[in-house]
This record gives sequence, structure tokens and C-alpha cells, in this order.
Amino acid sequence: MVELLSVAQAVDLVLGYAGHFGTEHVPLAEASGRILQQSVHAERDQPPYDRVMMDGVAYRYGAGAVLGCHGVQRAGIPARPLPDGATCLDVMTGAVLPEGADTVVPVERLIRDGKHVHFEAGYEPQKGQFVHLKGSDCEAGHELLNPGLRLNGPALAVLAGNGYPTVEVSKVPSIGIVATGDELVDVVTAVQSWEIRRSNEYALTGALASRGFTRLERSVVPDDLAETMLALEKQLARHEVLILSGGVSMGQFDHVPKALTKLGVERVFHKVAQRPGKPLWFGVGPEGQRVFGLPGNPVSATCCATRYVIPMLLAGQGVSRPETYSVKLDADAARVSTLTRYLPVRVLHDASGQAWATPYPMPTSGDFSFLAATDGFVELAPGDVAASAGSHAVFHGW
Amino acid sequence: MVELLSVAQAVDLVLGYAGHFGTEHVPLAEASGRILQQSVHAERDQPPYDRVMMDGVAYRYGAGAVLGCHGVQRAGIPARPLPDGATCLDVMTGAVLPEGADTVVPVERLIRDGKHVHFEAGYEPQKGQFVHLKGSDCEAGHELLNPGLRLNGPALAVLAGNGYPTVEVSKVPSIGIVATGDELVDVVTAVQSWEIRRSNEYALTGALASRGFTRLERSVVPDDLAETMLALEKQLARHEVLILSGGVSMGQFDHVPKALTKLGVERVFHKVAQRPGKPLWFGVGPEGQRVFGLPGNPVSATCCATRYVIPMLLAGQGVSRPETYSVKLDADAARVSTLTRYLPVRVLHDASGQAWATPYPMPTSGDFSFLAATDGFVELAPGDVAASAGSHAVFHGW
Repeated sequence: MVELLSVAQAVDLVLGYAGHFGTEHVPLAEASGRILQQSVHAERDQPPYDRVMMDGVAYRYGAGAVLGCHGVQRAGIPARPLPDGATCLDVMTGAVLPEGADTVVPVERLIRDGKHVHFEAGYEPQKGQFVHLKGSDCEAGHELLNPGLRLNGPALAVLAGNGYPTVEVSKVPSIGIVATGDELVDVVTAVQSWEIRRSNEYALTGALASRGFTRLERSVVPDDLAETMLALEKQLARHEVLILSGGVSMGQFDHVPKALTKLGVERVFHKVAQRPGKPLWFGVGPEGQRVFGLPGNPVSATCCATRYVIPMLLAGQGVSRPETYSVKLDADAARVSTLTRYLPVRVLHDASGQAWATPYPMPTSGDFSFLAATDGFVELAPGDVAASAGSHAVFHGW
Repeated sequence: MVELLSVAQAVDLVLGYAGHFGTEHVPLAEASGRILQQSVHAERDQPPYDRVMMDGVAYRYGAGAVLGCHGVQRAGIPARPLPDGATCLDVMTGAVLPEGADTVVPVERLIRDGKHVHFEAGYEPQKGQFVHLKGSDCEAGHELLNPGLRLNGPALAVLAGNGYPTVEVSKVPSIGIVATGDELVDVVTAVQSWEIRRSNEYALTGALASRGFTRLERSVVPDDLAETMLALEKQLARHEVLILSGGVSMGQFDHVPKALTKLGVERVFHKVAQRPGKPLWFGVGPEGQRVFGLPGNPVSATCCATRYVIPMLLAGQGVSRPETYSVKLDADAARVSTLTRYLPVRVLHDASGQAWATPYPMPTSGDFSFLAATDGFVELAPGDVAASAGSHAVFHGW
């Protein structure tokens, strides 16, 4: 029997074909969740002027505790000089510090008396207080964001604050999801007692859409070689990534590998030492299309998508931060002697911040209802000794 | 001085007005990330028939190691009887077990010889192997999914597999994001040295969009009472939730609270014992609109959105699982004696699954560039003694 590829070897092979899906410029309002692919630099010194940090009055420190006040430095206008005969100006948060002033006293500390203000009893301001000095955060040109970042709220705010109306992000690849299997009927169709409903395409849609991969087309091919070839040829022409489910095990009606080979998709590997998901197929098409043949079993398909498809797509977008992290098992978990085991788990953090994974072993390989109660799986290396409660493992989220 | 509302009190008040945004039915293909608002039950016994789990042959256990084989039980057709004169049928994964058969032998274990197959040397099948018995996972009618679940891949697959072409989910509320402040210019405009660019609306958009709140309208009002009233009246008529940023501190040009009161928005609270974000304003409009007045400072606005707006929106959608979790600090962190402190952090899990938060203290309250390197904040209760490295705190993600 030929030695099966290990998970590490298979992942390396897949990632070796990740390549890059290219970049495009999108308006900032549409960039949430996209992957940054440019450096972002400070447009100006930050803050760009000596900035008032509190509503109140601005004055020159040492001018006394009773100040003549007849004018306002609003936000959004150039710095005004402290007027002749006055020793302060009303100011509002965000305004430029008036010329000649160096200190701000907040309105809560002031008592107003006609054209004068005085400090509340006992109040002693500190020189320079509530003034955010020009350039004190960073200088113009400073690099604020690096490529590979998934654009969240703060990152979008940095882009907006520094004059980037559009931003260069990774392109979202076009993905074809192809279900195979004559026993499969659609969710809207009446189902016969010998049929089951297609569900993998929805599991895949969920995993992909939650990570921003929304350029998806779903299709179905029957268990027939000629029709499989016709359908796959069309899908290969339309998409950069194909994800097939079903049709990759060893039966006489599994036409998918044969059809792919005839269409010039070069097999990189078939079968990996893992459970579930052993029949996984991966190849590369004539135009560089990445083609995954996932097992038809829904749990297997979901595990393979999580372990191979998603990491390849994230790598192809240049995502800099891994999604995986370590967790501790809260119960013993059997290993499989020669196969890497994917064990579905639910993850919770205890009050001290320890991430605990509760295993949800599959009742049988065909059941997937229980997966909806889980967050992902932990990966257990092959072995004959169970992973004991308290040992750690790498968690991959759905 | 009036005692400020505590964070816990303010959060309770906000959540008390969360209500529910209602439900709607959406097609399954558009339901990814939505919040389930119905129970989901098994359409049929699971599996719905005695299901073949491997490609190979199905036979009656005990019929011997050499089997007559001239027929196929494909997937997607009703059960065939074992033919007269034959003792097995070829079967494929997912097929119905043929009538009269009780055991499956995988193709890898078989040697084929014309119309006969025999087992490989020494192979001993177990009775009933590779047959997934009807109803062994669950019975028809069993509850598979509960309301409150965010629909991920596995949950969508459960819906598809059980004949739900549409699904009842929480409505996404319509949200108006309103920026105030004369000093603020748009990202596309040339900026003067005394002006700064609006960024809060993008920070909010990112936080909202990443959680599926995409029914957003952005607008701007100047620092003028009459114009503020006109603009807010329009926004109140159009949205279930208004998020204002800026205009809620104590200066004479902060017209927002005044305008809201005149428009019949009842103030629930103004100011909370927290840093940043002390001037937070919250009220409820005549039609039940939830109105947040966030401070204009970008860090403050982002913290308040994370601590109040997002939890209220999630509660209003009936989300059952909290987003927050505990982490350990990897450095000492000062508290503020009378205020809850929001301290931006980056969170990483170590190899044993412990979540560690690295504080990113703000250089000054006006700088937000550093926030893009963080994942959220930890909440530190008021106090005079610093939280020491190794102590734990609750983490809120951006």
C-alpha cells in the first residue's frame, strides 16, 4: 500500500499553488472586511495643528485666574489671535489652539461673569493642559498600516483620516461550487425516501461568505462522465477556484478525477492521511485554476474546506494573520493510529482567559446536524495514545 | 458634583431599550451570517434510509468470501433486491442498502474476477459494517437548531439538508450614522491646516458591517442648531437606530442634545463614568428610535460603539452567544480611580490556549492610528491599584 500524504505535506502543496489573486482599488465605503494591499502613510503631522482637547477657554498660562473673554475659537476655522484687551478665547474640542494661547481650562472649571471668566475656587491648571500638540502622535509620511491587514473599523478610520478615498485591496477570486451525486436533490424539491438533500454547497457558501468570498456560483453535475466533463469545462472557464464535493472516492461512478484529467487539470494529489476527508483530491487547471475535489460526506467536506480551501484562499489574498490558535481539550480524545484526526469542538474561554475545547465526536460519519453546535475542529496528530484532557491542540474555526 | 452613571448601569439602560427588530424570511442562499429566529427540526429520520458508507459491494453477512455479483445499487434510486443467483450488488457511497443485504465490503478489500468478487486474503468483515442505519442519528421532528444562532456553514447545511428553502431570521435594522463638527472634512476634499478629516463614520461602518449590519446611511450636520434639527428630524424618520458622533460634550456649540430633546427624543442618560467616552449620550425617540450620541474623538466613539451600540444591536437581533470573553493581561495596566477604563489591546493565544492581551495605551486621546494594530479593548474597573500582569479582564472586540 502506498504511503498516504501527510496533512502537513498536503497543506504545503496546496499553499504552494495559492499564488495571488491580484489587487484592485475600491471606494472606502465598500472596503470593510477586505484585505489591504498597499502601505498607508500619515497624510500630515498627527494632529495637524495644536488641537484643543476640551470645551472651555484657551489662554496663556500665567495670565491669572480671572480672564477677559470676548471671542470664540470654533472648530473648523484657522487659529485666531487672542484679541487685544482679552486674555482668553472660548474654545471647543477639536479647534485649533488660538495664537498666543498655550493652555485650555475646561468649561466645568469655569465661572462666567459677563465678559470675564474665573476659575472655580482652588482650581490650578497645569501649563499646556488639554492641548494636543501638532505632530505629537506621528509625523507626516509615517507608515500607519501594512499590507495583509483585514480592514476593520479602526483601519477604515485611519484611511479616512489620512485622505484615502479609495484603497488597494486583494481581489476576491471567482469560485465555482460544484456538487455531484445522483442521490442528491435540491432543498426545494420533494425528497424521495431513497434520496438525500444537497447541503455541502450551503456549508461551503457559509464558510466562504463569512470570510468575504462572495463571488460564488453553485452548480450540480450528475454521476455521468460526459455530463461531468461538459459541466466542469464550463466551470473551469468561468472561475479561478473550483470546489467540487462528492465523486472523489474509489467507486466506478466517481467520474470527477477522470473528467478533470481529461480537461487538463493536473492532479497534485489524491488522498491524505486524515479522518474525515481521506479521499481529498487537489489539482491545477491549464489556466492555473485551483481545483479541490472534496469528499461528498458533509462533515468530511466541511473539514477539508476548513483545512485546505480556506487557508489557500486567504494566502491567495495575502492575509497576514492566521485564523488558527491553540486551545486545551477539556476531555480525553482518541487519536487514529495512522491518520490525522479532525475532531469537531466547541470553544469557550474561562474566566482566566484559557480557551477550552469541548469535543463533539461524530455519532457516525454521515451525520452533520451536530456540527452546527460546534465552532470548528481541533487537529490531532496520528498516534495510538489518546490526547488527554488538558493537552493542547490547534483549533480551526468553521 | 452629581454621581456619574456606572458602565454597568448604562449598559443595563441601553439593553433595556434593545427590544427586537422583528423577523423576516430569506432564501437560504442569502442567509449566511444572519441570526436564526425559528426552531429547525429534522425533516425525516437521519439518515432517511439504511445508507451505504463506502464504495464496494453489499451482501448478506455469512454468504461466504466469494460472492456472485452482477448488478449495481447506485445512489439516488430505490433499494434493489439482491438478484436471484447473486449474493451481492456493487454499491456506491450514499446509496440505499440493497434489500436483503446487511453489510458492505469496501472496494479496496475486493478482488474482482468476472462476475465474482472475493475478499483479499485474510480479510474478515464485521456484520453490519459500513451501513449507516436509518434513524440512527436522529428521528424525524428532532430539534436541530435553536433561535439566536448566527448561521454559519454547518447551520446552513442543516437547513438545506432538512428542506428549508427559506429561513426566518432577525431583520437587520436601518441605521443612520450622523457626523457633526465644522472642523470635519470628507476624505475626498482637500484639507486645510486647521481642519481634520471625518473618520468616525468609517470606524462605525466597519464595526457594523462586519456583524452584518449593512443597512447604513451616512450623513453630516454642521455645528448649527437649526440645521442640526432639520437633519436629525429627517434621519429619525428614516432609521430605527441613530448613531451620532461629536456634539455631545459641554461646549456652547454642541447642539446635538438640545436638538434631540426638541425633536422628542427622550434622554435616557448623558455621561458615564468611563474613559474614554465619558460624554456618551443615549435617548429614545418618539417612535422608539434608539439614539446614541457618541463623543467626537475617534477612540472614544469606537469604544462607545463597541461597548454600547453593538451589544444593543445584537440583543435586538436576539443573538444568543456573547462576543466577549476573558483574557489575561501580559503587562501591568493602570486603572482610573473613579472611571472604568477601556484599554486597547491586541490578543494572542499562546501554545497552551491561554489568551493574552497586550495593552496599547493611547499616546493621547486624539490619536487613533494605533487602534488599527489592536483587536479591541479590555475593561478595567475603577480603582487606585493597577491591574497587574497576569490578572484577567473582559475583552471586547472591535
